[in-house]
Amino acid sequence: MLSTTHSQLTRNGKSIILAHDHGLEHGPTKFEGVRERLDPETVFEMATHDAVTGFAVGKGLAETYYPSHEDDVNLLAKLNGGSSLWMGEPDSAVNWSVEYAAELGADAVGFTVYPGSNHELEMAEEFRDVQETAREHDLPVAMWSYPRGQGIKDHRKPEVIAYATRIALELGADIAKVKYPRSAEAMQWAVDAAGDCRVVLSGGAKTGDHEFLSTVETAMDAGAAGLAVGRNVWQHDDPTYILDALEQVVFEEATATEALDT
Amino acid sequence: MLSTTHSQLTRNGKSIILAHDHGLEHGPTKFEGVRERLDPETVFEMATHDAVTGFAVGKGLAETYYPSHEDDVNLLAKLNGGSSLWMGEPDSAVNWSVEYAAELGADAVGFTVYPGSNHELEMAEEFRDVQETAREHDLPVAMWSYPRGQGIKDHRKPEVIAYATRIALELGADIAKVKYPRSAEAMQWAVDAAGDCRVVLSGGAKTGDHEFLSTVETAMDAGAAGLAVGRNVWQHDDPTYILDALEQVVFEEATATEALDT
Amino acid sequence: MLSTTHSQLTRNGKSIILAHDHGLEHGPTKFEGVRERLDPETVFEMATHDAVTGFAVGKGLAETYYPSHEDDVNLLAKLNGGSSLWMGEPDSAVNWSVEYAAELGADAVGFTVYPGSNHELEMAEEFRDVQETAREHDLPVAMWSYPRGQGIKDHRKPEVIAYATRIALELGADIAKVKYPRSAEAMQWAVDAAGDCRVVLSGGAKTGDHEFLSTVETAMDAGAAGLAVGRNVWQHDDPTYILDALEQVVFEEATATEALDT
Amino acid sequence: MLSTTHSQLTRNGKSIILAHDHGLEHGPTKFEGVRERLDPETVFEMATHDAVTGFAVGKGLAETYYPSHEDDVNLLAKLNGGSSLWMGEPDSAVNWSVEYAAELGADAVGFTVYPGSNHELEMAEEFRDVQETAREHDLPVAMWSYPRGQGIKDHRKPEVIAYATRIALELGADIAKVKYPRSAEAMQWAVDAAGDCRVVLSGGAKTGDHEFLSTVETAMDAGAAGLAVGRNVWQHDDPTYILDALEQVVFEEATATEALDT
Amino acid sequence: MLSTTHSQLTRNGKSIILAHDHGLEHGPTKFEGVRERLDPETVFEMATHDAVTGFAVGKGLAETYYPSHEDDVNLLAKLNGGSSLWMGEPDSAVNWSVEYAAELGADAVGFTVYPGSNHELEMAEEFRDVQETAREHDLPVAMWSYPRGQGIKDHRKPEVIAYATRIALELGADIAKVKYPRSAEAMQWAVDAAGDCRVVLSGGAKTGDHEFLSTVETAMDAGAAGLAVGRNVWQHDDPTYILDALEQVVFEEATATEALDT
Repeated sequence: MLSTTHSQLTRNGKSIILAHDHGLEHGPTKFEGVRERLDPETVFEMATHDAVTGFAVGKGLAETYYPSHEDDVNLLAKLNGGSSLWMGEPDSAVNWSVEYAAELGADAVGFTVYPGSNHELEMAEEFRDVQETAREHDLPVAMWSYPRGQGIKDHRKPEVIAYATRIALELGADIAKVKYPRSAEAMQWAVDAAGDCRVVLSGGAKTGDHEFLSTVETAMDAGAAGLAVGRNVWQHDDPTYILDALEQVVFEEATATEALDT
Repeated sequence: MLSTTHSQLTRNGKSIILAHDHGLEHGPTKFEGVRERLDPETVFEMATHDAVTGFAVGKGLAETYYPSHEDDVNLLAKLNGGSSLWMGEPDSAVNWSVEYAAELGADAVGFTVYPGSNHELEMAEEFRDVQETAREHDLPVAMWSYPRGQGIKDHRKPEVIAYATRIALELGADIAKVKYPRSAEAMQWAVDAAGDCRVVLSGGAKTGDHEFLSTVETAMDAGAAGLAVGRNVWQHDDPTYILDALEQVVFEEATATEALDT
Repeated sequence: MLSTTHSQLTRNGKSIILAHDHGLEHGPTKFEGVRERLDPETVFEMATHDAVTGFAVGKGLAETYYPSHEDDVNLLAKLNGGSSLWMGEPDSAVNWSVEYAAELGADAVGFTVYPGSNHELEMAEEFRDVQETAREHDLPVAMWSYPRGQGIKDHRKPEVIAYATRIALELGADIAKVKYPRSAEAMQWAVDAAGDCRVVLSGGAKTGDHEFLSTVETAMDAGAAGLAVGRNVWQHDDPTYILDALEQVVFEEATATEALDT
Repeated sequence: MLSTTHSQLTRNGKSIILAHDHGLEHGPTKFEGVRERLDPETVFEMATHDAVTGFAVGKGLAETYYPSHEDDVNLLAKLNGGSSLWMGEPDSAVNWSVEYAAELGADAVGFTVYPGSNHELEMAEEFRDVQETAREHDLPVAMWSYPRGQGIKDHRKPEVIAYATRIALELGADIAKVKYPRSAEAMQWAVDAAGDCRVVLSGGAKTGDHEFLSTVETAMDAGAAGLAVGRNVWQHDDPTYILDALEQVVFEEATATEALDT
Repeated sequence: MLSTTHSQLTRNGKSIILAHDHGLEHGPTKFEGVRERLDPETVFEMATHDAVTGFAVGKGLAETYYPSHEDDVNLLAKLNGGSSLWMGEPDSAVNWSVEYAAELGADAVGFTVYPGSNHELEMAEEFRDVQETAREHDLPVAMWSYPRGQGIKDHRKPEVIAYATRIALELGADIAKVKYPRSAEAMQWAVDAAGDCRVVLSGGAKTGDHEFLSTVETAMDAGAAGLAVGRNVWQHDDPTYILDALEQVVFEEATATEALDT
């Protein structure tokens, strides 16, 4: 684990990562109601918000739109991913090399591992290569640690999420992105199991502002080092508004209610 | 995504790519009625037409016939393909390396990916290697993005074709070749989903001239950047005639009727 | 496709390739009645006949017996093969590298591809590596294009054999070796489908001299560029006699009857 | 086999290896009752005990916590492992390269092989690469030789454990870690079968102190070269106490009773 | 095929190879009755007998015990092997590289191929890499050619054993080790099918001295170039006695009876 304290990915050890790999992972139907945001330029704009410490996108979006945002966006190169048209046991394709991401100016790399899938071991070995190459380029590594597949009945169970963060620590991730395990206590367990590896909350599907920010607040209180949010921002009517609120909850210890009232 | 604005593959950002990989993909029975065109020299001749901005063929045809057409044909090296004798889940063999294509003088490379096939992830990773090597040779990359296989019930559904163009953008293609999604509205959605990646229409099986050109007209109006056409030209009685008409519809904004009347 | 006009493998663009990979492909039971020919030296002797423009053998025979025949035999390194003890879907092992064959002094390389087998795509990619490395060593490449496996009901059907030669052309072979498609017309179709790639007839199992030579004669008339013959020579009572006759039919346009009478 | 006599991993040819790969292999539920030991720093502290000749951990823990313990801990880099969420036939992912471990300052490497699993041959070949690279870095190699999977009905049977140590010797391990085969006689057989390869006992699940130390005593009397212990130390109420006792049994030939009384 | 006439592996073109890979292939239960021979040092001693022209062992035994026998044992590095705990279709793991064997001072390498197994093609390609690398190190290559697996009903049938030796010749082996095909005539056929590749008899399971030596005598008379013997020597009460007898039968054309009487 590299210390990310001084990386651009964090502000005082905390992170708000805006994730926008949904075009590949879920497809255009996810843009219903926000059709204009099919244009990645609109979401790159959101990523210039001060609160966003890292913007996670795939190769195509990075290649095409990042060059004109190099000064106001920290690029987190999301290296693997796959479409939801694919029906196999949970797995992802490695869509770009660390070298290519570094060449493009990435500030960090991200990689999904599905513990419990029949492909867990292959993905761990892909993560090994990514992680060790990232070290050569001094790039922090975030693991999307998503227990999924044949071995997993309920992927949000407390022991499953705690195991997910521990796997991230054990395999050499600097940041572990995990789903919310439904309680503060379970989130605390997940943070403890990760040792010095920073745990960030996965924002998940779009919910109401207060519900969303309350979950973030609880996770921060349980020791999370921030969150990686996607749809709750880029599907939001007013992305700047919700990012302003997130900034207070994540970096300024505000409660959800306080953040929404300002 | 590399900008293809100044590549030989486009004229004012638009492309007419003549594709002739049918010998491998479908076999000699596709040449019924045009038996003499089994001789690739005859189709290379068609590709010298001014309207054709790129000629997509496999390694064998490129090696054998392109050297005598270097000055009047832009070679798009179609890197993967497979015969229809093969009965597996949709997949393709990578039949030549980018290096070999570049050595032969290719102006661009083309690669088929079948989203939704059990082989989607392997093909995406093959595309990764092709795409990153093509960048080293400054070669634009066209993705034949054809949703096919176990995950696909209807490969021309609007959301499936929009997903196909988005996958091409996300994986780093410069041009996305997709089937016509049956309506202008769906074609518009597909173009929007592709962001800055240029969407070209796949010409598909031979149809009547007016029907064919009307589809092209509609696609162009919906924002397509041209088409990649095969059988509707090299199976045509008078290839020059249909290429003249295409030139007007694609580059001069003529309607199908106008193009056919001149 | 490299022009083989000036390669040692052809005499005025025509070839008689003696093939002797049967020891590996079919085993010692094929030597019944010609037990002494188990000794490869005896078959190397046959290959010194003037009519033989290339001798196709595997690595072991080439390593052991070719050094003492470098001056009077053109070595065609048959790179892949497998025993008939193996019961899987048609496939072959790649038993030596192009580099090793070139080092040994090979004048050309040969490679089997089984279009229609579940392994077609893997074999095409193995052929890609062989073909591109052979180009670096200026070695012509002959493809044994044998449609076989799950996708093939009748491997000698006219459209199947025409597809087989087209596949050879499309993948970059210089010579396509195919089975006789049962008629002159079908052979003509196969030759046309191959474009500039030379089609040679596979000699197949031992038959009567006149029947064998008549097939060769018909194939030549249909535009074949010669044949690759095995058992009809090395299982023959008098190999020199049959090679003399073949020489006339292939290089001197004699009929089967004329060749057998002299 | 490299002689480990002079390696830091042994004291007078004997070893007490503290193993802590349970976070990855078994997950956070194994830390019940010792929740604070989820923090790897607490277990690194235990490893500074004089009796511990090697501390076996995975990449993440080594990267994060070993740098501050370089002077008082000998790092045994446990190269492969996998989570218990994974339901496949016994196998492990190779999570870091020998080069990376050597760069980090490892004093030895460890690798699990599951003889009898359908993946035995793949794991043996992974072990080959690890073992030959470790030789280049003068790093002793410990094999966790755990017969498991389709071929194994009872993984502690005497002939199975003796086979496990022989496999370690035959494949080039310097140390073989095996489960206790339920009797002194069977342990003797296992030690004999290993020739000069040192056999260390796997500590296994937490048991009572006297039961645990008696097993160690018996194994040492049967010729074992020490043990690799995990849960019987880091799950212990007083790790220093049990390590003191182990030190006497392993290095000073004390009986279990003597060691517990002091 | 490299000529092994002048290699240390043969005396006047004949070989007695002592094989001791049983520890890995069959496990410690094979040492019943000769428990002390679990110590490989005892079997290395046997290999110093003048009659032994090569001693075939795996990496672990070679690494550990060969350095102290470099002057009195010719090391044949048995590169692949696997335990009998493994229940898959016949296959072997490649346990050390040719480079590593050459570095250790090997005089030759050995490799098992199971023709007829579903893994035949993979093993042939592993043999290719081993064989071509061995050539770079001037190391003769012995193939254990053991037809086994789904395609083999009776692995000792005359045509199967003749095919086994032919496969060894065809793939580039210098020595073919095969099971005895139950008759002198069948052995003759196997020798003929191998051309210049030397055929050595596999000693097989322990039998009575006269029965064993008679089989060797018959094989030698049928043209075998010696034998590779394991259990009939290292399980023997008096290994020196049986090696003395073998020396006479293999190198001095003695009959079994003569050899046993002296």
